[in-house]
Amino acid sequence: MQEPQALLFPASSRLVAEASRQRPSFDRTVRQLLLLSLMAIGAVNAEPLRLLGPADLEQAVRLREQALQSDLAFELVESLVTEVGPRSAGSAGDASAVAWAVAKLKALGFPEVRAEAVPLRAWQRGDAHAHLTAPFPQPVVMTALGNSVATPKEGINAEIAYYSDLAALKADSSDRASGKIVYIDQKTERSRTGSGYGKAVAARTEGPSEAAKRGALAFALRSIGTDHDRLAHTGATSYQEGIRAIPAVAVSNPDADLIARLSLQPRYQGRPVKMHLSLASEGGIAATSHNVIAEIPGSSAPEEVVMIGAHLDSWDLGQGAIDDGAGVAIVTAAAKLVLDSGLKPRRTLRVVLFANEENGFDGTKSYAAKYRNQRHHFVGESDFGAGLVWRFQSRVRAEALPVVAQIAAQLAPLGIAAGDNQANPGPDAGYLMRLHGWPALELSQDGSDYFDWHHTANDTLDKIDPLKLRQNVAAWAVMVWLAGQSPVAFGSMDLK
Amino acid sequence: MQEPQALLFPASSRLVAEASRQRPSFDRTVRQLLLLSLMAIGAVNAEPLRLLGPADLEQAVRLREQALQSDLAFELVESLVTEVGPRSAGSAGDASAVAWAVAKLKALGFPEVRAEAVPLRAWQRGDAHAHLTAPFPQPVVMTALGNSVATPKEGINAEIAYYSDLAALKADSSDRASGKIVYIDQKTERSRTGSGYGKAVAARTEGPSEAAKRGALAFALRSIGTDHDRLAHTGATSYQEGIRAIPAVAVSNPDADLIARLSLQPRYQGRPVKMHLSLASEGGIAATSHNVIAEIPGSSAPEEVVMIGAHLDSWDLGQGAIDDGAGVAIVTAAAKLVLDSGLKPRRTLRVVLFANEENGFDGTKSYAAKYRNQRHHFVGESDFGAGLVWRFQSRVRAEALPVVAQIAAQLAPLGIAAGDNQANPGPDAGYLMRLHGWPALELSQDGSDYFDWHHTANDTLDKIDPLKLRQNVAAWAVMVWLAGQSPVAFGSMDLK
Repeated sequence: MQEPQALLFPASSRLVAEASRQRPSFDRTVRQLLLLSLMAIGAVNAEPLRLLGPADLEQAVRLREQALQSDLAFELVESLVTEVGPRSAGSAGDASAVAWAVAKLKALGFPEVRAEAVPLRAWQRGDAHAHLTAPFPQPVVMTALGNSVATPKEGINAEIAYYSDLAALKADSSDRASGKIVYIDQKTERSRTGSGYGKAVAARTEGPSEAAKRGALAFALRSIGTDHDRLAHTGATSYQEGIRAIPAVAVSNPDADLIARLSLQPRYQGRPVKMHLSLASEGGIAATSHNVIAEIPGSSAPEEVVMIGAHLDSWDLGQGAIDDGAGVAIVTAAAKLVLDSGLKPRRTLRVVLFANEENGFDGTKSYAAKYRNQRHHFVGESDFGAGLVWRFQSRVRAEALPVVAQIAAQLAPLGIAAGDNQANPGPDAGYLMRLHGWPALELSQDGSDYFDWHHTANDTLDKIDPLKLRQNVAAWAVMVWLAGQSPVAFGSMDLK
Repeated sequence: MQEPQALLFPASSRLVAEASRQRPSFDRTVRQLLLLSLMAIGAVNAEPLRLLGPADLEQAVRLREQALQSDLAFELVESLVTEVGPRSAGSAGDASAVAWAVAKLKALGFPEVRAEAVPLRAWQRGDAHAHLTAPFPQPVVMTALGNSVATPKEGINAEIAYYSDLAALKADSSDRASGKIVYIDQKTERSRTGSGYGKAVAARTEGPSEAAKRGALAFALRSIGTDHDRLAHTGATSYQEGIRAIPAVAVSNPDADLIARLSLQPRYQGRPVKMHLSLASEGGIAATSHNVIAEIPGSSAPEEVVMIGAHLDSWDLGQGAIDDGAGVAIVTAAAKLVLDSGLKPRRTLRVVLFANEENGFDGTKSYAAKYRNQRHHFVGESDFGAGLVWRFQSRVRAEALPVVAQIAAQLAPLGIAAGDNQANPGPDAGYLMRLHGWPALELSQDGSDYFDWHHTANDTLDKIDPLKLRQNVAAWAVMVWLAGQSPVAFGSMDLK
């Protein structure tokens, strides 16, 4: 999972306008949601009420109970991290992951499995070293941000220009940063929703160019993470066109504490903090990855697609267990439960394991272009680790809200609360939702500890609790089944 | 802190024999301890009862209260890790640490401060890389054990011979390990006392030679640590004389989990696990470090010494915050409180910051030789991180137990329980206690999380809670003051 801020739905879009016609006073309890949504429909629509029938609801209960007894998802992510491990887009690991996914989905018995080529430009990390040279020699644990250019071979040795956050850098019209290494010290707040990451991440994406505009030689920031581990958090950065690209790194939080002490404590004032930084990297490498797709064809409306996704690639530093092996495993296991139920879903159920979510969204863009004219009943994605699902949200037209309430009622026994109709379904699915106006469903996971490990070497299997994974699969199976059986379309008929 | 098992008191020693004459039924409450110790004395000794007087006890209360209001200890460790950082014996950081300590102790106003040269043979870590080459290519996070020899330049690529623990290796009389990398997978149990480390650490110290005896090319083990971080735990190993020295590394726990899955899961049986390992290192480097000593001369018995210590060196991977910057700070701050009280202690109070505890005990050995004929009233050490003190223990002659009970009573308000008379006062002090039969006092810290960070890059300042450090200093100040004022000698008159 990359950019929560990228999930924000543009206020101008058609779906938001549609949602705004609904009554604003949705309550979070399922019963009230149902009642209110019925009232909403009565107010805007003369259609007779259409709801899911008892057979579908009973099937949801069976799927839920089966999921809570199954460790298939854990076995899948365990297999992926053990047999493939790190798999950044375009790498040998990425190719292994595609082969793994195709073989695994076929072995699970999905009737249609395919890999769709995604051309991309890969970025490859090289060796990186940093240490303070003044006022005291100290090693510095850091890692290059994704897409960072390399330093000259001999490295860069320069004074640190300290800024508390990106706003402070942007507000600086002096020449203080010129010839220095710009350093941003913003801390990431812990939260269930990942909002702290959303607040901090702009420093990573915009910081290098803001620094370069001010004449900086390089850019560094406090890792965007909630941990206190001596491991730096990578993640994509980007360079503004026309601005010089400068090397960009993230420093581990304990090392960031050291730089903060030296920069801020009165006893060290007047003693410049200097850092030597050398890093190798290579970008723009022509490569091909693949979106891996499995389908269960729909029985009565095969032309309508329920798309549930995750991303197959990972950053190179960890094993890609929580980001996003867990998501791959959750949506695959949920679809497998539907497959094994023997009942044919009305609409086509499609699992998409996207290529290169982390560093360019190439898989999503490719999917968006290829399937732009296919009617998507809804899109969903699991890409926020392996924490418990605590909330269910939708972004559908008002007529579908009674069905959404029925789904919420079946999720409630899993400890999942009903949210609103402003779902942000994940980075890839959110991209598709925004681009094409496709409806979306969201199962919000507890991400309280996600940013302790996200984009670090610590993204390993031991961070996943198999029991929490069962709850996720149960939620996905219930949601996918019931939403896919909905007698009401989730999107407007005139959606592109 | 290095070797809990090294703290075990030989059953044959004089002090144990002496302690065994005491009543065995010590209760843990202070009142009962006092009563029972009085009975014990009555049984073995006709001397009149001698106890600490009210002035000394009142002074202890004042010291305790002052310590609980002071952040001096945190400021000291913060200064050490910020201005020096890693300081393995013989390194430039070690020399900086000695200079830092001398300057700091002088600035604190101790009337006598000196650095005593300690010649030693240093070991220096070099670059190290490892990855699995079969059955799946995977990076492996590991680090060389202290004293490890290097691999050939091209590295070693060999099959892993998996053993669940050291006992399994020792029991193997087959040729299974020959030509392979012996791998020991023993996990470290979490405990307050560090007993889990004590059980696991023999694999680190004895493993390489046990492997070499069986023809192994190299040795690796699961990190001796209770964490799930992608950081390996170093620590000294040693080679038996006459046995070939082979490269020896510790693998991070998540990587150890990976190796365990590949070695143990039925689906991977018949597929050898192979690892490529390359590491550089250099041992036997002639160097000089120093024990740094500060003293407050005794008023009425200056020839008797109260020795409280910690070690100034640290492993190279972290900042040496919990191991043992915290101990340096705690004993120094406690002595400073005594110094500032204006009251002259009866006996000489000596703070010793030992050289090279981690990889050879050179500082302790040097101290032991230099001061072997000086009468030590007791020795103590702080070298178990920055957790709260939960227990007070002694190893003194029976006649001193009523005074020990008085001290325990003054420690009780800090949440500290009375233990027994079998104290193990820390690695350096324990060495001196065993060698010379010197009496000892121990303040046992809660080490539940100590082995999450011990000997890793994660040994950084953020792992220290300043409030817990205050409690430690309070305990040390109370203990040092009262024990130093004791009207009763803690050791036998005829101790060497």
